Amino acid sequence: MRIDRSRLERSIQDLGRIGETPNGGLTRLALSDDDRRARDQMVQWMREAGLAVRVDRMGNIFGERSGTAALPPVMMGSHVDSVPTGGKYDGQLGVLCGLEAIRRLNDGRVRTRHPVTLAIFTNEEGARFQPAMIASGVMAGKIALEDAYNARDKDGIRLVDELERIGYLGPEPCVPRPMRAYLELHIEQGPFLEEEGLHVGVVEGIVAISWSRVTIRGVQDHAGPTPMRTRHDALVAAAEIVTGVRRMAAEIGGDVVATVGNLTVSPNITNAIPGKVTLSIDVRDPADATIDRARALVERVVADACRREGATYELDHYWRVPHTPFDRDVVDTVERAAKAAGARYRRILSGAGHDAQYMAMLGPTGMIFVPSRAGRSHCEEEFTGMDDIEYGANALLLTALDLAVVN
Amino acid sequence: MRIDRSRLERSIQDLGRIGETPNGGLTRLALSDDDRRARDQMVQWMREAGLAVRVDRMGNIFGERSGTAALPPVMMGSHVDSVPTGGKYDGQLGVLCGLEAIRRLNDGRVRTRHPVTLAIFTNEEGARFQPAMIASGVMAGKIALEDAYNARDKDGIRLVDELERIGYLGPEPCVPRPMRAYLELHIEQGPFLEEEGLHVGVVEGIVAISWSRVTIRGVQDHAGPTPMRTRHDALVAAAEIVTGVRRMAAEIGGDVVATVGNLTVSPNITNAIPGKVTLSIDVRDPADATIDRARALVERVVADACRREGATYELDHYWRVPHTPFDRDVVDTVERAAKAAGARYRRILSGAGHDAQYMAMLGPTGMIFVPSRAGRSHCEEEFTGMDDIEYGANALLLTALDLAVVN
Repeated sequence: MRIDRSRLERSIQDLGRIGETPNGGLTRLALSDDDRRARDQMVQWMREAGLAVRVDRMGNIFGERSGTAALPPVMMGSHVDSVPTGGKYDGQLGVLCGLEAIRRLNDGRVRTRHPVTLAIFTNEEGARFQPAMIASGVMAGKIALEDAYNARDKDGIRLVDELERIGYLGPEPCVPRPMRAYLELHIEQGPFLEEEGLHVGVVEGIVAISWSRVTIRGVQDHAGPTPMRTRHDALVAAAEIVTGVRRMAAEIGGDVVATVGNLTVSPNITNAIPGKVTLSIDVRDPADATIDRARALVERVVADACRREGATYELDHYWRVPHTPFDRDVVDTVERAAKAAGARYRRILSGAGHDAQYMAMLGPTGMIFVPSRAGRSHCEEEFTGMDDIEYGANALLLTALDLAVVN
Repeated sequence: MRIDRSRLERSIQDLGRIGETPNGGLTRLALSDDDRRARDQMVQWMREAGLAVRVDRMGNIFGERSGTAALPPVMMGSHVDSVPTGGKYDGQLGVLCGLEAIRRLNDGRVRTRHPVTLAIFTNEEGARFQPAMIASGVMAGKIALEDAYNARDKDGIRLVDELERIGYLGPEPCVPRPMRAYLELHIEQGPFLEEEGLHVGVVEGIVAISWSRVTIRGVQDHAGPTPMRTRHDALVAAAEIVTGVRRMAAEIGGDVVATVGNLTVSPNITNAIPGKVTLSIDVRDPADATIDRARALVERVVADACRREGATYELDHYWRVPHTPFDRDVVDTVERAAKAAGARYRRILSGAGHDAQYMAMLGPTGMIFVPSRAGRSHCEEEFTGMDDIEYGANALLLTALDLAVVN
């Protein structure tokens, strides 16, 4: 059994037009009008495929294809929100490969014992509302529904108000759902599969992730008549933190990655010494112990930088997910499916967080990676070729078939 | 002859309510609704003081009190726009001390041979439209009217459209005006007068100022699965430039100041490696030669930082004003006036740019400084006590009287 490559390609192109950027990327921020349009399109396709569609209180969408027995479903899912000027593959591809797998089951009138469900999670990226993966986090009981509802974007708009505005504040409780398994196909977002000439990554788990926020307060003053000797420049302290975080990653070495991705200066004009800077620190490593070590080093970097500049600061390690190993049986099933699909593959660890991370707390979970050209993602140049997508989608279909048990 | 302290204090309080921030500072961006309200208030007061009010094509406002002879006016002026979360003294104080001086002439029915004119210049701060002092720059022929009209704020709105919207696109040509002298009272914005227990600074001139802009392009990518070895992080390069600019100022030493006040990251989210950063570099020194040296060092700092990170960049030194010495006779007149007003004073150089810088190209120019508490300005804590203001305003009044020649 094989997916319909040209139908899948058409769906990728059609959905990719919603929020498309002039350079062929995607800006489809969570709960924006474009997110609503993408959701509406998905719901329409899900209904056309005969799925029973339900929306929960976090706006997560579930479309179920019935099984022949009263058993928990095999769930395939991902997300349709993107980062600003992101690409057309991150999230969207997993959802559309899941839809194609279900369409293929319909084509062949395949009956499975377990139902097969397509899931679309809200605000996976964390680009608009923080933290990332907020809706699967609520489902897993790791984030309080109220906290998620009160998350605000940079304009102060609450998540719950946007859910309501775009018509996706559903009636179903956002709680753990019984499931046979959760499967997520996703782009690798790293360079390894492409470098090694592979089609598919059999994902064994997800690295540990830590997000911290630093607020630095110096003394806002005029850039002209204020002598260098009396300055307390919040941006100078922030710059030392940015370079310090880079140095910290080099010191720890191995697989650790550390990034300052967000940095905002106030008042941010040419002729004022910055009085305030906020910045984010993202640290990831396969080992939880490395995160502990990195956080301790970050604390020293921040304290030293602010002390030298005579600035005050707050450092908040506000989000952390531990290393997540996936279910051994599901991973083995994915590997068999990749082999059966004829793909060149290897086992791999995910450096990015995914909803699968929270779903792994609720049931047997696995992921399938397809290569990212030049390892790039979260940018308009993000790309995966149709050959690789076909191998990945077939591996997803075969894994789902295996777990859902054909009648 | 002495100014009316309580009337001046009331005017400072009244005008200070327009655009007041919750913390008692001022946000009154050029050509905003609050700027219009402040202009309307000033025009009303100028008319009540019997001045003939004219507005030019850059929105500069001139209110003239007639002289007894057909002679060019003694002009007193400053601006009423502010930086975001700025203070109530920068700009506004000079305009109101000029108004109070004219009111005092009216009280005493003093007749002067030269007319006395109050001037309010548009967009002095450069916080909304760049460059700073754009309207006096046009008047001095140093900035083309068309370029000034096409200056855009961060939302892409053109200066000329805002001038028209708020009703200050006047009919008079914005060209050099004949003048006996231009006088500007302003807060020092530095710590020296307060540190030395002085009331007044007799300003001898303005330091040379250089503004540059750097655009750094790295490779936007996902903060998780992208190994440290393959990164080209625009913010890491920018951070090295920020610390490099600070180091450059220490190397040059003396009176030089160097500031990165504006820094903007794209896409500016926690889990994306920054692909693009723009930043500003402001360098000032009494000596023009130091600016040349600083620019050369900045070029090396930028090139080195971007080379190390494998990023590309554009560096644009887009604005420069040379050291501006004020007119020797006017400075001497200010000094005599400060002495006659009973002020403790000294001669001083301005580290901030002022419209007086361009006006000095058009006629004999001088400035009067009053102390800034803790040297602070461009912030809500900006403050000058009424005792100091009174000394400064009296020095302004006596200077204007001397130059306008009492009949």
